[in-house]
Amino acid sequence: MTTEQETATLARRLEELLSRDDVQGAVELLDATHPADQADLFLRLDESERQTVLALLSANGIADLLEHLDEDVLGEVVEQMPRATLARVLDYTEMDIAVDILRLLPPSEAVRTLSQMTTAAQVTPLLGHSDESAGGIMTRGYVALHKEMTVGEAVAFLRATRPLAEEAYYLYVLDAGNHLQGIVNLRQLVVSDPKDKMQDVMTRDVVSVRPDTDQEEAARLLQHYRLRAIPVVDDAGVLRGIITADDIIDVITEEATEDMFRMAGLPGDDSIFAPVAVSARKRIPWLVVNLLTAFMAGGMVAIFEGTIAKAAALAVFMPIVAGQGGNAGTQTVTIVVRSMALGELEPRDAWRVLRKELALGVIRGVLFGVMVGVAAMAWKGQWGWGVVVGVAMLLNMLVAGLMGTFIPLGMKAFRLDPAVASGVFLTTFTDVLGFLFLLGLATILIGQLT
Amino acid sequence: MTTEQETATLARRLEELLSRDDVQGAVELLDATHPADQADLFLRLDESERQTVLALLSANGIADLLEHLDEDVLGEVVEQMPRATLARVLDYTEMDIAVDILRLLPPSEAVRTLSQMTTAAQVTPLLGHSDESAGGIMTRGYVALHKEMTVGEAVAFLRATRPLAEEAYYLYVLDAGNHLQGIVNLRQLVVSDPKDKMQDVMTRDVVSVRPDTDQEEAARLLQHYRLRAIPVVDDAGVLRGIITADDIIDVITEEATEDMFRMAGLPGDDSIFAPVAVSARKRIPWLVVNLLTAFMAGGMVAIFEGTIAKAAALAVFMPIVAGQGGNAGTQTVTIVVRSMALGELEPRDAWRVLRKELALGVIRGVLFGVMVGVAAMAWKGQWGWGVVVGVAMLLNMLVAGLMGTFIPLGMKAFRLDPAVASGVFLTTFTDVLGFLFLLGLATILIGQLT
Repeated sequence: MTTEQETATLARRLEELLSRDDVQGAVELLDATHPADQADLFLRLDESERQTVLALLSANGIADLLEHLDEDVLGEVVEQMPRATLARVLDYTEMDIAVDILRLLPPSEAVRTLSQMTTAAQVTPLLGHSDESAGGIMTRGYVALHKEMTVGEAVAFLRATRPLAEEAYYLYVLDAGNHLQGIVNLRQLVVSDPKDKMQDVMTRDVVSVRPDTDQEEAARLLQHYRLRAIPVVDDAGVLRGIITADDIIDVITEEATEDMFRMAGLPGDDSIFAPVAVSARKRIPWLVVNLLTAFMAGGMVAIFEGTIAKAAALAVFMPIVAGQGGNAGTQTVTIVVRSMALGELEPRDAWRVLRKELALGVIRGVLFGVMVGVAAMAWKGQWGWGVVVGVAMLLNMLVAGLMGTFIPLGMKAFRLDPAVASGVFLTTFTDVLGFLFLLGLATILIGQLT
Repeated sequence: MTTEQETATLARRLEELLSRDDVQGAVELLDATHPADQADLFLRLDESERQTVLALLSANGIADLLEHLDEDVLGEVVEQMPRATLARVLDYTEMDIAVDILRLLPPSEAVRTLSQMTTAAQVTPLLGHSDESAGGIMTRGYVALHKEMTVGEAVAFLRATRPLAEEAYYLYVLDAGNHLQGIVNLRQLVVSDPKDKMQDVMTRDVVSVRPDTDQEEAARLLQHYRLRAIPVVDDAGVLRGIITADDIIDVITEEATEDMFRMAGLPGDDSIFAPVAVSARKRIPWLVVNLLTAFMAGGMVAIFEGTIAKAAALAVFMPIVAGQGGNAGTQTVTIVVRSMALGELEPRDAWRVLRKELALGVIRGVLFGVMVGVAAMAWKGQWGWGVVVGVAMLLNMLVAGLMGTFIPLGMKAFRLDPAVASGVFLTTFTDVLGFLFLLGLATILIGQLT
């Protein structure tokens, strides 16, 4: 990977070459640059420079470049490309990416482009699947062999068809009806007797997914069995496509980002470099939800305004009790959400986890309850302060353990994403109940506080 | 992947077979189960059942099982295994995993085990690298070919040596001094003329890492260039090992978990199913840090106790101003930390991001400042309340944008992990300064509040 520094230098050199119309030099620079780095370079060019670069690249070269561009830039580039050029380019891109690109176009444009593609027959069936399903990320770029083929014939077939490297790691053995029978890898082919038949050398026990399997589940399977690719097979056993490890790496990265963002009340598709207006539109809705929950916490305090007027020092302990509850609960929510995402934790384990987190709540509660209770008593010189603050802390630690477990597991049970704003919901409980415990106890024991 | 349900059923059946001493049946059940699923099964067995299962498996079978076990269970199993058995098992495991296992043993035990391994010469050099460096996750299980070898000779060599499938995707072309010259993949071998030499068919432009490269950087490179494996080359250009995509998938998953946990003030190695005492020991230290920061927030409130005694309703707005600041800042911290982890954001972009997040702070500040200001004025019927609450909210939103950007970028600049407890530090600022703005303004305008 060229560093940011190097990319910036390359971009300046390319801009200079383009400004002097040194087409030869620009082409040489692009040819010497890996498409992944070309994509980084491309981001730094202005609109007209980008157009020039696209004009300098072959359809195959543009295809390589598009495969490495982020979705937002991709959208702009594709929109401005003549449909005939786009069709030629998409014939060269990996099919799962061709599908992603076609999805960026208005439906009528997508159909028009598709009609000019030579790979239309293979790409069209992929369009019908949801973006985040196995069908949506699979590619048809695999090598299929008939089960009666011999090893010698298979090698001759590969020599003649010259499949791409990334497509040829696993070879899929089918019957006449395209039903998946087994898998052969290139190594088996190389080391087997040329007269053996595919059905004799193939591995029959194949892990596969359905087209409507969620991409996260496909990722978990590939990771669990340490595979390079996983076939997508329909109800009838017909091979529909394959998902390769590099696409799974992207899925894993994306899903982790999505979970982190959702826990923080951020939409999964916000970007650090998005324009201010876009980010504002994406981030403000959850903050409005949060404001409503903050008003609930404020409302709880308002109920006890009279108590606070008598013992203003209660306000000092409000952020301590609520904040400590929020942080302890965030630890629990985070570990529960992540363990579920990794498939380690199922709703059926709820009791076991709940018992553990409540036990932790008791430990933390006693520990921090005593610490802040003693501190409060030492400061104010009255045992009432110690009891009110200490007990409120103890109870709020139990709420943290309980709600930290219950919120994400409950969301999962209702088939919601456990990550979504778990943090916001959790702190609502630890704030509202933390204030109730502290101020409620203070109201009862007010005689000991003043 | 067998579901939890199926694993439980299988475990019960295995336990039953073991209790009736049906060795034949137990072996058949294990043989029919993928090692990844055997590992899930193993977790559900008790100590003596585990020992029986290990006795039933061959050294190769145990090796497959160990490769799929989690580190904590792995530690227990390995500790109790006779050293001679362990040495035989480790000869069969992938070398990067053999190294991980040897690291679990006390040094003297590791040396004793190593001395009995036939692969000792290959595994020993791997032990010298840090656990999280490229050298620490690389394997020596690759296929090397001499640059003068012909395609025909290479195929004959592969047929004779029968390398494992996962090792044979890329073939590494070396000179007599083991310096990496280029890479050939199996496909190139299959489609090339048998008389061509390796140095003519190989790809010379190879992306590689050094042994001391951080594993995250290796993961980013593999992902950036969409590779299946990446060679590890020392300063002299000598090939030391390779890192394969499946190991990178594990790195990506681990690093994402670590970041999520660290942001929540959880150590990266806590586990949802760890014993209560272990989790308590892991989680409490950060909560103690958090308690100290909470005392800072409480201390800030204490300064203004007199003001609160005069206008107790200020306590109602304390959680609203502080909570909204904390949540807005958490959005910023999360997106900054994640973008840095993905290599999208470098400290040099600090100004650009800071300007954007401050602009967002102004938008959010004006929006929520007006909302809560108007609400406060409507409730209390005095303009002073609107000004105090609204302005405090506006200022705290600016703090959220500023500190949300500054804390993780600053930690990175000082070579600390930006994820570590960013959330705890952020809320310290939004709490302490939020209270200062709210209560400080109230003290100045106290005449308008009562």
